[in-house]
Amino acid sequence: MRQLLAEYPVVIETPVAWGEMDAFGHVNNIVYFRYFESARVAYFREIGYLTVMEETGLGPILASTECRFRVPLTYPDTVLIGAGVPEVGDNRFVMKYRVVSVAHGKVAADGEGLIVSYDYRQNRKAPVPDAVRERIATLERTVLPGP
Amino acid sequence: MRQLLAEYPVVIETPVAWGEMDAFGHVNNIVYFRYFESARVAYFREIGYLTVMEETGLGPILASTECRFRVPLTYPDTVLIGAGVPEVGDNRFVMKYRVVSVAHGKVAADGEGLIVSYDYRQNRKAPVPDAVRERIATLERTVLPGP
Amino acid sequence: MRQLLAEYPVVIETPVAWGEMDAFGHVNNIVYFRYFESARVAYFREIGYLTVMEETGLGPILASTECRFRVPLTYPDTVLIGAGVPEVGDNRFVMKYRVVSVAHGKVAADGEGLIVSYDYRQNRKAPVPDAVRERIATLERTVLPGP
Amino acid sequence: MRQLLAEYPVVIETPVAWGEMDAFGHVNNIVYFRYFESARVAYFREIGYLTVMEETGLGPILASTECRFRVPLTYPDTVLIGAGVPEVGDNRFVMKYRVVSVAHGKVAADGEGLIVSYDYRQNRKAPVPDAVRERIATLERTVLPGP
Repeated sequence: MRQLLAEYPVVIETPVAWGEMDAFGHVNNIVYFRYFESARVAYFREIGYLTVMEETGLGPILASTECRFRVPLTYPDTVLIGAGVPEVGDNRFVMKYRVVSVAHGKVAADGEGLIVSYDYRQNRKAPVPDAVRERIATLERTVLPGP
Repeated sequence: MRQLLAEYPVVIETPVAWGEMDAFGHVNNIVYFRYFESARVAYFREIGYLTVMEETGLGPILASTECRFRVPLTYPDTVLIGAGVPEVGDNRFVMKYRVVSVAHGKVAADGEGLIVSYDYRQNRKAPVPDAVRERIATLERTVLPGP
Repeated sequence: MRQLLAEYPVVIETPVAWGEMDAFGHVNNIVYFRYFESARVAYFREIGYLTVMEETGLGPILASTECRFRVPLTYPDTVLIGAGVPEVGDNRFVMKYRVVSVAHGKVAADGEGLIVSYDYRQNRKAPVPDAVRERIATLERTVLPGP
Repeated sequence: MRQLLAEYPVVIETPVAWGEMDAFGHVNNIVYFRYFESARVAYFREIGYLTVMEETGLGPILASTECRFRVPLTYPDTVLIGAGVPEVGDNRFVMKYRVVSVAHGKVAADGEGLIVSYDYRQNRKAPVPDAVRERIATLERTVLPGP
């Protein structure tokens, strides 16, 4: 199962809650975006992004996000949620997500988000802070050695 | 239907969302507490509680809450949610709630919350501010003339 | 504001709930997908999709969805949520969504979903039922006269 | 921490999600009822209630529930949620809940729910099935030896 998440340096685990299933008897689609968000925040903690934000005023904004549903989730189950950053641009980067069902040993969903660097003091887009850029590079390398 | 809400000076209206139903095909129990919260916040706006909080540091904390479920809700429907304050003590007051199903013309749930007055600057319980106490009295009288 | 929604034949309205704001003080990203879902279900009711599903076993599955965030939403506000179908394929169609903030008179978010036609009795993809295809065509024309 | 949960024979664990915090920066009140529900469903699985329901048509309905908030929860944290049944009546029983913050080593909330036994085939209240009554007795004894 970890193999399915090999390209995702940050992985969190959370139980599926019965009450997250909707009237069709599957975990409701909005819950997958909660999964993505939880993995995104864990990734941000891992690279100290929130500390950078407090010190410099430069923080992340979620500009867009998407999800491709593969296998429906049902209670009881546990999901592993991976997050990785495949691309960093000047003032934005892409984060990818993967949700794996432990009960099925399969990918339940894949997703992506575009995160923009924002200067909260001057209210405008800003470059991705160097410290953030470097820690992303280190974190991704650690887990994903090049060929 | 308004008669069912005669004792609730603040009433808000909201559509039932399909996605709030759970695997039993009824609106999930936690959604009722979202309804209560929305009515509570509307009541607080009505009496200017948040302005008082900004000026004095004295604001509300939800200490406890409960719900008695009467008739299950399903999509499609619209609910009316009423809030009223039957009792004000020295440093706390009781708020009662009622959820009415428009489709059924019936009470779907009744509830109650205990709200404690808190001094957010000194981190301790505090008396209910006079301005809040007076506006509650006025609002409740307006709608509920005594015998 | 209706002009912003001119290309969306189905429009629903819902109040922003205070409790849907997250720790950043904005309506949390997952709530937008609840908005999309509510508009999608309203659209399906408008074209009688669920009746077709009961009769034929052919129903919709959400295969993927995305959201582009434009303006943050805050309480108090009301949103209008539009849904439209710009493209119908053999066994799938695209639904587009738009969320408009009444307080700001602006588009808060745009989105899209890919819906696949599924035979729930035989557990496989299926053609979009003719009745559904025709009602979509009628509904879209009604609101969107061609050039 | 387990000592705080000694009287709760079923205990589940779940991480606090960042997105469950509201604009006050604390886990929103409705989330506690999701915690209670997850522990309730885990308890029902433990005693095989859903199997009994399929066989006999007699299942549980949540008639009322309440929560007393003790310590606010914030991300990051993990909660342990305990469920126990202190009282079983003819056609109803009481379930109690406790939420413990791992980060604080303290009780974050206590709660209670009234569960009514319902005959889903005949649509009326029904006695608590003997199998359910016995398994509750066994489960509670296992964990809570009498004096």
